[in-house]
Amino acid sequence: MEELIRYGEKFFDELEIAVYRSKDVSANVELNEISMASTRSGAVTILRGIKDKRLGLAIIDSAEPARIREAIEQAAKMAKLNSRDEKWVSLPEPGKYREKPKPNYELKDASPDQLVEMLVRGIKLAREKDENVIVAGGEGGVSWEERHIVNSHGIDVFQEGGAAFFFIELVGRKGDVVTPGIFDFDARRDLNLDVDGVVERAVQKVKWAYDVKASKNEEVPIILGPWAIAGLLSFALFPAFSGERLVKETTPLAGKVGEKIASDVLTIYDDPFHELSIQPVVADGEGVPTRKNVLIENGTFKGFVWDNYWAKVHGTESTGNGKRDLNSGGINIGFHSMVIENGKRSLEDMISEIEHGYFVDGFQGAHSSNPDNGNFAVTANPAFLIEDGEVKGASVFLVAGNVYELLKGASEVSKEQTVMPFMTTIITPFVKFENVKIAGK
Amino acid sequence: MEELIRYGEKFFDELEIAVYRSKDVSANVELNEISMASTRSGAVTILRGIKDKRLGLAIIDSAEPARIREAIEQAAKMAKLNSRDEKWVSLPEPGKYREKPKPNYELKDASPDQLVEMLVRGIKLAREKDENVIVAGGEGGVSWEERHIVNSHGIDVFQEGGAAFFFIELVGRKGDVVTPGIFDFDARRDLNLDVDGVVERAVQKVKWAYDVKASKNEEVPIILGPWAIAGLLSFALFPAFSGERLVKETTPLAGKVGEKIASDVLTIYDDPFHELSIQPVVADGEGVPTRKNVLIENGTFKGFVWDNYWAKVHGTESTGNGKRDLNSGGINIGFHSMVIENGKRSLEDMISEIEHGYFVDGFQGAHSSNPDNGNFAVTANPAFLIEDGEVKGASVFLVAGNVYELLKGASEVSKEQTVMPFMTTIITPFVKFENVKIAGK
Repeated sequence: MEELIRYGEKFFDELEIAVYRSKDVSANVELNEISMASTRSGAVTILRGIKDKRLGLAIIDSAEPARIREAIEQAAKMAKLNSRDEKWVSLPEPGKYREKPKPNYELKDASPDQLVEMLVRGIKLAREKDENVIVAGGEGGVSWEERHIVNSHGIDVFQEGGAAFFFIELVGRKGDVVTPGIFDFDARRDLNLDVDGVVERAVQKVKWAYDVKASKNEEVPIILGPWAIAGLLSFALFPAFSGERLVKETTPLAGKVGEKIASDVLTIYDDPFHELSIQPVVADGEGVPTRKNVLIENGTFKGFVWDNYWAKVHGTESTGNGKRDLNSGGINIGFHSMVIENGKRSLEDMISEIEHGYFVDGFQGAHSSNPDNGNFAVTANPAFLIEDGEVKGASVFLVAGNVYELLKGASEVSKEQTVMPFMTTIITPFVKFENVKIAGK
Repeated sequence: MEELIRYGEKFFDELEIAVYRSKDVSANVELNEISMASTRSGAVTILRGIKDKRLGLAIIDSAEPARIREAIEQAAKMAKLNSRDEKWVSLPEPGKYREKPKPNYELKDASPDQLVEMLVRGIKLAREKDENVIVAGGEGGVSWEERHIVNSHGIDVFQEGGAAFFFIELVGRKGDVVTPGIFDFDARRDLNLDVDGVVERAVQKVKWAYDVKASKNEEVPIILGPWAIAGLLSFALFPAFSGERLVKETTPLAGKVGEKIASDVLTIYDDPFHELSIQPVVADGEGVPTRKNVLIENGTFKGFVWDNYWAKVHGTESTGNGKRDLNSGGINIGFHSMVIENGKRSLEDMISEIEHGYFVDGFQGAHSSNPDNGNFAVTANPAFLIEDGEVKGASVFLVAGNVYELLKGASEVSKEQTVMPFMTTIITPFVKFENVKIAGK
């Protein structure tokens, strides 16, 4: 790589070479059957070079030196055609990295067989527990990634590792009732995925869903599950923490560092080294050391996160939140492993105290939330009615509001913490919110 | 391949090996600059085997015989774990193929340079024509594919070919007005993409969009452009032509063959050999010969399209509409190149006769249309107000209705025909519809 950097310096003032090698193994379920098993591997190299503040960026699906040389030349031609980005300062300098966690090489050698067996066991278990259940969908997967990021200022960081995940979607049919798709999932850094737990939780939710209850317009306490939380916060809240949005004046959190923006019970941080993290990266997509960045501490907003470019534009330092988009090659501000701190009591205890309210498993439509102001309008589905401390059936309703209003009403977080590996990866407890206005459907 | 089929027959009653090799070259624009150039190539092999009516399906990203053998074994293990699909009949038999059009090898060797140059020229041209314009986005791309489909009943069909496409998205700013993103595009089987035409059309639409006009609730004639047509019909109408939906009773066209479902001016067919087609395939994803399938002829519904599986379940023949999904490996009923037959007069002539109405360039929200009944609710944006035979400005409004009601109101199709390469590929004229209810926004 050293040699390629030297070659690139003939064309550029500074340059970066990022090589990603991946291996993905997966198996899928459709309607109670295994529908496919797949093994894919590949390499992608992204070349970013800057000459006279003009950017060149080339992507190739190879890590061969000869091809990387071609990509350097390609990017150099592009840089010549682009105009100067007067805001450009420089690529990052090397930093001090944390010790890399030991990769679990068992994941590198995972075969689709192991995943197929897991899924077959899951299907069998679900149908034993409830004969009215169809396993409508599901997937087991293992991803392995080796990333090597090098730049002409001396950054040279390599890391490898993997993660496994498993999810199922059940649909129950009983009499006239067809339940909505009910999901559950697990994700971890080894193959000991909790298939039994996933199936048990999903089957329990299907049982609840057989009993369809009407919903009405009212103000009630609601408990949000991991899938609902990840959906809503990924789109309505998390983008507001981006330093790019601070510079562009599209975050409602501008000028609010140190202010209370949520209730005391909420502490939220991005921490790739959390014990449940499925991607414990020591460096971000441009080789800047990662760290734990606290965003909300006991309800108080602590600050923004940055990548190298926007940090330098703003006159601050990257917080290690430059995430590489392997499709566009670009760096965006993002999160490694969002964590909502957990509490002391179980979900069961929390439910047992609710006289009348809902436990919301998923929100639909969260992607059209507006992070510029936190407004959202979502359909809670599946949502489970709680009466006298017990789940009594399933319902659907609308919630339209503002995420910051919602956060102020948070009253408790559960002991249980779940890794939600889809959308923004988030490690979250169940969270209870008071006096949420819902509209019956 | 012969040898691999023989190897697979040790495990399966019948099997299919489909090998896809691809090369994709592309370059992108973001905010007036080239943001990346990319070159990717790869191979995917999909192995489908059936033993005792049990399906096994494996996907690998390689075309090496040793890896394909492993995939065969993988699929065989999976087939053992699956239950019998009592509806399974057999894989297809060989058919008679049309003569393959000569591939354009210039596309196989296309480099990102050519696309970068095209985009740079497009950016320059757009900003020369209108200094208030920002080229917010855009892409030039060339895809090359070699597909080889072989099965144990003697199907053995190879075809190669490529296509090029180009699109830009412009945003205009003038005074207080910021226009919505305005798109235009071209796609063809050679590199002579009409960059000038694309830019000219997009700049014209931006000019119209500077003049913002209010919309109100009324019934008006509207002319739909290719992007709006492709969006709406891909989601609200085309799925209804699927034989699978006939079997599953989820198409409103059941029992309507021979009936009038649209106005006389509409003739719609799927034809991979249309002169503008960007993928003139002689065989579908399972090796069945493709053909021209007429769906609507002068307003009359002519019949459904089928893949091998659903055709045999229904007791009919595949129409060559089995499309391979390279992610799931499965075959779905789909279209190669939808065509709406064109007319005699130009768009300009059609506009010149409208006293009060709209020309709709794009619909938002079409993906949530319901193909089970044809209902849709979309936002027309950008939409251009026509007064006294001339475009007078831009507007936004809602259209909620039923696609079959709309089709009955079609009154004219333009002479111009455009290839719309996104969503379902469709070759379409501009189409005028009478008395469309719109809701001002």
